[in-house]
Amino acid sequence: MEIISEEELIKLVLEYLDKEDFGEKLSPGDDARDIIPRSLRIMFAIDGYSIESAKLPWRSLRDVAFSIITGSASDLISKGAVPHGFMVSIGIPRQWTRDMVVELYEGFKEACKEYGCRLLGGDTNKSNDPWIAVAGIGFSTAAHPPRRDGAQPEDIIIITGHYGAMGIVALDGINTASKLDWVKKYTKRPRIYVHLANIIALYSKVVHASMDVSDGLSYTLYTMARESNVCFSLHDLPMYHEELKEYCKGDQECMLERIMYGGEEYGIVLAIDPRYVNNFADELRNYGIPYRIVGKAVECKESKIYYQNKSLPIYRWDQFRGWIRS
Amino acid sequence: MEIISEEELIKLVLEYLDKEDFGEKLSPGDDARDIIPRSLRIMFAIDGYSIESAKLPWRSLRDVAFSIITGSASDLISKGAVPHGFMVSIGIPRQWTRDMVVELYEGFKEACKEYGCRLLGGDTNKSNDPWIAVAGIGFSTAAHPPRRDGAQPEDIIIITGHYGAMGIVALDGINTASKLDWVKKYTKRPRIYVHLANIIALYSKVVHASMDVSDGLSYTLYTMARESNVCFSLHDLPMYHEELKEYCKGDQECMLERIMYGGEEYGIVLAIDPRYVNNFADELRNYGIPYRIVGKAVECKESKIYYQNKSLPIYRWDQFRGWIRS
Repeated sequence: MEIISEEELIKLVLEYLDKEDFGEKLSPGDDARDIIPRSLRIMFAIDGYSIESAKLPWRSLRDVAFSIITGSASDLISKGAVPHGFMVSIGIPRQWTRDMVVELYEGFKEACKEYGCRLLGGDTNKSNDPWIAVAGIGFSTAAHPPRRDGAQPEDIIIITGHYGAMGIVALDGINTASKLDWVKKYTKRPRIYVHLANIIALYSKVVHASMDVSDGLSYTLYTMARESNVCFSLHDLPMYHEELKEYCKGDQECMLERIMYGGEEYGIVLAIDPRYVNNFADELRNYGIPYRIVGKAVECKESKIYYQNKSLPIYRWDQFRGWIRS
Repeated sequence: MEIISEEELIKLVLEYLDKEDFGEKLSPGDDARDIIPRSLRIMFAIDGYSIESAKLPWRSLRDVAFSIITGSASDLISKGAVPHGFMVSIGIPRQWTRDMVVELYEGFKEACKEYGCRLLGGDTNKSNDPWIAVAGIGFSTAAHPPRRDGAQPEDIIIITGHYGAMGIVALDGINTASKLDWVKKYTKRPRIYVHLANIIALYSKVVHASMDVSDGLSYTLYTMARESNVCFSLHDLPMYHEELKEYCKGDQECMLERIMYGGEEYGIVLAIDPRYVNNFADELRNYGIPYRIVGKAVECKESKIYYQNKSLPIYRWDQFRGWIRS
């Protein structure tokens, strides 16, 4: 087996990096990229992944790479920043072929193209347990980028995106999921809505809290509620994939669980000043962003999430210990 | 053995993250940090490392973490940017204890303190082969951040920093190196000069090329020369550790090799317009930055590095294949 050298890798990576000139003086391949900030506020995030754990059997390496950029973009968007560009550091085993690296970079590039952002830089390392770390930078016009912990009693809770497919993977297992074409379709490449960043930025003073759904919807809701010292009382479910109803044969409990205990859907949970909810929802509708108003924040002693007045158990996927009840 | 949970890890990491308020609205622990750019140009870089390969036997985890931040800061400084802050993603095995993670973060924090920059964020992942990826952001007032490939014939070559210790590790092996206290001392925590960023920015129009020394001095010199389509003709050695002379018993070849084939010294090689070399060198002297004028760039057909008119073999450490001659 031919071992790919670091120099070959660097050359390969260079082909994928964005070369467009935005008044910049440094090129891809240099030790850093110089960026001219196009907003008074920039947003900066990092996220690492084990490639194995991101790799559902029906996800190619290209899908994995696409999904990882999606996750990083989602972090920026939830805080009201339009993703500008990403830098990617990867660790791969000696045995990896050139084609596998190409697959990864094709996926990064496809995600950047879809989200209108730039692949700014990359670096390759050796690792027996392959990994990817993505750093993202975004521009925001938000006067008050929404924190996780700003929800106030009476705020209206809006959830964007569709849920249910990853919950089947998480609760019913890979085997069951792999027999359902719709689950594979929706979980292959989670998708996000970049324009949501602009809406959040425009309404940043009345979006009291915002967080994306990466570790399961119940956990996102609970984290926001707990850090904001409120409870969320939900009367409705968020949007879910139509096929879930049939899968659950209409069983409400089955549907609720698969909606709440998934992950990586990268929808966004927003707590919004009730006076501006209609305007905010109008914007979502105008830009074709799926959403549902699911409930509101209420005062309480101990933070909990209620769905139709019943307290919801909160689970979170812990990389080190598996599913954990909060 | 108690397995540390992801939540505990997140709590631990949070204690180390910078909480100072620079007009920012988001806190550490949120999905992104919002930063107000304090310059018309920002600089952005990423670098990944296998912890095993960064871990010389006399480097503690704290030293490894310190060295890794140093490497990332060095990339920014070489391009004329003062490091503002870093985000760190780590992958660690289940078996790692809380204390090991604390050691890493103490090292990150110590480096940030020493370089006057901020530890902005962190994320933890599971990996059987531990790794660290660091993304750095810096601010630069440079009108023309120096590229790698801008060296012109007649430019004067200046090298900052001291060399020789890592060359002993690389050429004579860990065993020999571990018996030499001075080698251990100088390679435990490579150190850099942050103010150099300001000097490079101030002189950015006459610093035609600049690159830091991470993969060995010969490789840095060669990369700059090759990408600039020139040769470098060196008449002098850069600064080296005094102890090297004794180690090599005055043998010039021995010294040259250990200076040229090390790595991670994080000095900077600069190609400077000859008319401004004296002013530039004055600045270095005024700020106590060790440097030496070693030679100049010359026109040539095939890029080579000459030391006292003899062509220097170029080696580079390749993570996948070991030492490789360019």
